[in-house]
Amino acid sequence: MKILIIGGDGYLGWPTAMHLSKKKYKIHLIDNFSKRTIENENSVKPFEKIETMENRVYAWNSLKLGNKISFSFGDLINHRFIYEELKKFKPDHIIHYGEQPSAPYSMAGRSQAVFTQSNNIIGSLNLLFGIKKVCPKAHLIKLGTMGVYGTPNIDIEEGFLNVKHKGRSDRMQFPMKPLSYYHCSKAADSVNLYFASRVWGLRATDLNQGVVYGIDTPETKLDKKLNTSFHYDHIFGTVINRFIVQAAIGEPLLVYGNGNQVRTFLNINDTLQCVELAIKNSAKVGEYKVRNQFTEVFSIKNLALLVQKSAKKIGLSTSIKFINNPRNEMPKHYFKPSNKSFLKIGLKPRKINTKFIIENLNRILNSKKNIDKKIISPKIMWNH
Amino acid sequence: MKILIIGGDGYLGWPTAMHLSKKKYKIHLIDNFSKRTIENENSVKPFEKIETMENRVYAWNSLKLGNKISFSFGDLINHRFIYEELKKFKPDHIIHYGEQPSAPYSMAGRSQAVFTQSNNIIGSLNLLFGIKKVCPKAHLIKLGTMGVYGTPNIDIEEGFLNVKHKGRSDRMQFPMKPLSYYHCSKAADSVNLYFASRVWGLRATDLNQGVVYGIDTPETKLDKKLNTSFHYDHIFGTVINRFIVQAAIGEPLLVYGNGNQVRTFLNINDTLQCVELAIKNSAKVGEYKVRNQFTEVFSIKNLALLVQKSAKKIGLSTSIKFINNPRNEMPKHYFKPSNKSFLKIGLKPRKINTKFIIENLNRILNSKKNIDKKIISPKIMWNH
Repeated sequence: MKILIIGGDGYLGWPTAMHLSKKKYKIHLIDNFSKRTIENENSVKPFEKIETMENRVYAWNSLKLGNKISFSFGDLINHRFIYEELKKFKPDHIIHYGEQPSAPYSMAGRSQAVFTQSNNIIGSLNLLFGIKKVCPKAHLIKLGTMGVYGTPNIDIEEGFLNVKHKGRSDRMQFPMKPLSYYHCSKAADSVNLYFASRVWGLRATDLNQGVVYGIDTPETKLDKKLNTSFHYDHIFGTVINRFIVQAAIGEPLLVYGNGNQVRTFLNINDTLQCVELAIKNSAKVGEYKVRNQFTEVFSIKNLALLVQKSAKKIGLSTSIKFINNPRNEMPKHYFKPSNKSFLKIGLKPRKINTKFIIENLNRILNSKKNIDKKIISPKIMWNH
Repeated sequence: MKILIIGGDGYLGWPTAMHLSKKKYKIHLIDNFSKRTIENENSVKPFEKIETMENRVYAWNSLKLGNKISFSFGDLINHRFIYEELKKFKPDHIIHYGEQPSAPYSMAGRSQAVFTQSNNIIGSLNLLFGIKKVCPKAHLIKLGTMGVYGTPNIDIEEGFLNVKHKGRSDRMQFPMKPLSYYHCSKAADSVNLYFASRVWGLRATDLNQGVVYGIDTPETKLDKKLNTSFHYDHIFGTVINRFIVQAAIGEPLLVYGNGNQVRTFLNINDTLQCVELAIKNSAKVGEYKVRNQFTEVFSIKNLALLVQKSAKKIGLSTSIKFINNPRNEMPKHYFKPSNKSFLKIGLKPRKINTKFIIENLNRILNSKKNIDKKIISPKIMWNH
């Protein structure tokens, strides 16, 4: 079984590659390194040194724990590149992590918004045409985001909604209300993907993922050279990751707004579990399957309180600071998303708890000198 | 009152410009001539000779029937161009027709789909940033399409739907199921536009327009140099326009599939009326207003029968030929769209009738030699 991972250099792409290699899948990676470029642009870097792609792949292959991973550098915007890769590798499944993933980055200004939407929408469109032309039976697993739904006043179902209106009914794509230009790009992707499935018969799974947290997977722990790019900065750092870093270095946990915003979350190891489940339960010909990919639901304030409490247990005194929300979010809202589809096919959630937070706090404390305090506070305003 | 028209060289942009100039609005046009480029690419051309933009503008201004129209050549993809135009002209309203408008073109292949989505989505995104930066109080009137809704099994409301689900309710963007990559680009535009309105407070009206038909407006009739680009070809020719041309030259009316597809329609003069009504009833600060812009609903088969009947009255014998549908459309479906919002603010629909069709048939017959038979039949298949 051959799996192409697009965005194989990323926070999730790289651990996914090792995880699936160990499970005896044949893995080929591609990446355009746009995330490393954006790191340079914004003077942010991951918590730990990240090896070059060649060194990461070499280090993993040297361990001989699974199938050899291969890598090609290239960009989905260059359709000749992706067509060629599909022809050479002939994947059975394609896991598409290859999108600009930062909401704040997409809101920084015109060029960042345009890069995000071009890279994500047009890159994915090239990929759809490539699949249609080269390997129409391959199963595309595309990473979406829970942020496409926004915070509607009704329960959030998985991609579709059974709508009743004036005595009639239809199963329709769940109405989207994305939270940033990044999230808008994912909404556009979903519309294109659903279209390609129904018109061309492509097999597609759209994984609307929550906010991922965590530093390690079993494979990243094996060797420093296998680290994944854990970010705690204002561009790529997700909220739990930021809070743990702030607690470790004695900085206040910065909560945007009143912290009553509620979001979905999952452990990085559960991303790997979900993606593997999506491979094993793939979409049929012509099917556009949407799965909401998260394990828990928290308000930002409650997460801050949980990190504060956990930090206290190892003697770290942490304050919580509420700051003006740089984003445009509802300060109070209903939020009840479903994740039944993954539970039904066997997802065993790892819930966040004090033990996990303490482990990660200690992990940060061990390399405290790596932390650059300046890059944590938000600098990008949604309405600047 | 100053009005910037983007896509001022087009089938609708140019007549809108003259119409509003006569109504004493100050009009500035921009266009990237991408439609003329696509005409060349595909060896199609409009029914009548279309003057260069400079000559059209000169001919109109010479008549002294309204305010002088000015024009700049440029592309929304070049953000410096659009920023500069906004700075120089300081529009009160911006009418955005500047999108690749052909569904078949967008389905011809990868490069056409990518051009369509880049031109439309990224061009419009640049425009949003330009408005925010230069003239945040300007009212953006963006042409959308009824094709973003697809053919749902429920009544189609105007942009939003009051959703009830599991005992709760919300007003949500109407679920979209676009009919082509072109229509997908309009769906993405609508998501971006709604986002910009709620986060930045932009004033936006999205006009989800039906299929436009007709050759003339009062202004185009004044001088041959003022013609608009009436297309009857497989790329840009809309269905009524194609049927009238086919009837005039004694070719069968080509109906795609069984002709039971139902669509919305409006006369080109009603486009002008609607756009003017949208100016006079503009969106408020932070409002994203959607109006469905059409006057009538017909099945394709019934339109063919109407054209056939009308042609018979002037002695033209016309056959109807049902061919395999090159598009991906439901052969039978429910269809009940609303256009209340325009009726409420005073739209007086011009309904299609035998008189109109005969007038247009005669118009075509007078210049029958202009017609190129080869370019009418569909050549682009949705699933090739």
